[in-house]
Amino acid sequence: MAAGSREECGHAKLVRVRTRNPVELVEQVVAGDRSAVARLISLVERGGDPARETGRLTFPLSGKTYTVGLTGPPGAGKSTLTDRLIALIRASGSEVGVLAIDPSSPFSGGAFLGDRVRMQDHALDRGVFIRSMATRGHLGGLALATPEAIRVLDAAGFPVVLVETVGVGQVEVEIAGSADTTVVVLNPGTGDAVQAHKAGLLEVADVFVINKADRPGVKELERDLNNMLDYDPAIHAGEAWRPPIVRTVANSGEGVDEVWAAVNRHRARMEETGELAERRRRRLADELRAIVVGLLERRAQRLAGGPDFAGLVGQIEERTLDPYTAAERIVSGL
Amino acid sequence: MAAGSREECGHAKLVRVRTRNPVELVEQVVAGDRSAVARLISLVERGGDPARETGRLTFPLSGKTYTVGLTGPPGAGKSTLTDRLIALIRASGSEVGVLAIDPSSPFSGGAFLGDRVRMQDHALDRGVFIRSMATRGHLGGLALATPEAIRVLDAAGFPVVLVETVGVGQVEVEIAGSADTTVVVLNPGTGDAVQAHKAGLLEVADVFVINKADRPGVKELERDLNNMLDYDPAIHAGEAWRPPIVRTVANSGEGVDEVWAAVNRHRARMEETGELAERRRRRLADELRAIVVGLLERRAQRLAGGPDFAGLVGQIEERTLDPYTAAERIVSGL
Repeated sequence: MAAGSREECGHAKLVRVRTRNPVELVEQVVAGDRSAVARLISLVERGGDPARETGRLTFPLSGKTYTVGLTGPPGAGKSTLTDRLIALIRASGSEVGVLAIDPSSPFSGGAFLGDRVRMQDHALDRGVFIRSMATRGHLGGLALATPEAIRVLDAAGFPVVLVETVGVGQVEVEIAGSADTTVVVLNPGTGDAVQAHKAGLLEVADVFVINKADRPGVKELERDLNNMLDYDPAIHAGEAWRPPIVRTVANSGEGVDEVWAAVNRHRARMEETGELAERRRRRLADELRAIVVGLLERRAQRLAGGPDFAGLVGQIEERTLDPYTAAERIVSGL
Repeated sequence: MAAGSREECGHAKLVRVRTRNPVELVEQVVAGDRSAVARLISLVERGGDPARETGRLTFPLSGKTYTVGLTGPPGAGKSTLTDRLIALIRASGSEVGVLAIDPSSPFSGGAFLGDRVRMQDHALDRGVFIRSMATRGHLGGLALATPEAIRVLDAAGFPVVLVETVGVGQVEVEIAGSADTTVVVLNPGTGDAVQAHKAGLLEVADVFVINKADRPGVKELERDLNNMLDYDPAIHAGEAWRPPIVRTVANSGEGVDEVWAAVNRHRARMEETGELAERRRRRLADELRAIVVGLLERRAQRLAGGPDFAGLVGQIEERTLDPYTAAERIVSGL
């Protein structure tokens, strides 16, 4: 087949531009075709059989990229910081892939890209690939699609992938927290330490960034974070990594190089101690579990389309049947 | 059994305080025992068999309460507004239950209650039941536990239940959006319209509240929201409910009565058009699907504890096997 497509080169070129065949797309991605990267991520985003097929193909090609998660409350300046980090990484000569995860919005029919337009400064740089991702539909969508999209970038040869998510919400925090190094971006004077605590952000942070550090309240936020870190017994005993707190003004670029230095220190420490391999193993086990649940969920969805399901919902509505008994009937029928 | 416990009244009283038996707890809840309500919600929160047993028991007793979701970005003033609404509802003579959903934090080992302490003003009022909920563990936890906790309050006879969640995150928005009426709380001057759009909040809003309306930027936020609503074809055609926009200063209580009036107008409209019944049917169908997935997930988890699972993860780690093929092997072994 590969020989055939080479023979009909002119025609193959036309076909290549439009293909949605994962096998061909993966070949093109490995060959350095950036538009194939975009299309492959679209396949992954849409889910279903082509996404799983893509996963099968990219998996053996992956495992080389280093992922850095950036998260924090809305408006903390994550996009600006990401933007600055891209420039820094590019200046060091490395290529970089970026996934900006947007919560889904069926209203707009897609991700709302307003504040990401700025990132298009890098649009002409082949060494940068930026992609905004959103998924609709079931809850696990983003959680499954993100590692898959990372593997596409991994297979494409990007040595670093930045994953930016809004840091409030179980799914979103989990996605950011499953990076190799997770950077949590907060602002002074906003009560962010408490909000971050509530959102579960403190648990996933490997590096804290106090962005907009030219505003009042920096010392208070630093003190709050340090107090919270002091409560962690493993950190207290010196066994666990203590997340450094870096001050930045992302708008002016101040402190951004220190953020990247902190990320690299964390990386070096994780590689030394073997924790990186351990984290990645845990992440693969989590992903395997999620894929198993996804397969089972598909079975359940298939049943949910059937007449039995509608009949059961009718009985539940009349309260002659409870949803637990109904669910057991459905599952026992699988 | 009931007769027996009445005979041994003194002893039964002692046992009653400590029971974790769902059957007994549900009896006590129906009899008006508020501490049993708290314990039953704890059972639901922890999940597992007692939660499902509780669901079976409370389901036939439920279907009477009206649920109002309150959501919005962190710091929008949801707790203060909730607080004010409680006072208003109590003044009208009605009892009210409140569920404040907190994102989970394994760090603190539970919900972080700081800003809810204020709500304890109502602690001595038997007509108010306030409960902060958090779940750890799997993603679907909160989504399953919340309707279950609502049914406990329903069975306890609360005619209104307020459900407060932070409005960023897929799970959290979904929980708030599955109330009978959903109130989205935003602030002027913060770019909240765009953030709300990104977070999917506009889709779930039945009533918009611009809280802190004594600050600059109210007109701009109102205009942005109206523009966004104008884009909805069903609203534009006059077929769908157009969410009213209410200005409040929750700290002073200003406008809170109008929020409640808007909620009641939405309720009346939904009852008239039959949309309330339709929404509830959809919600039950969604819940049934979620319970089915939960049951299947348990099967998957049981497998994930076994030696086969660890072996497969090892092969995936060595990249001699991809997670999709591994997942299919697991599922075919079910």
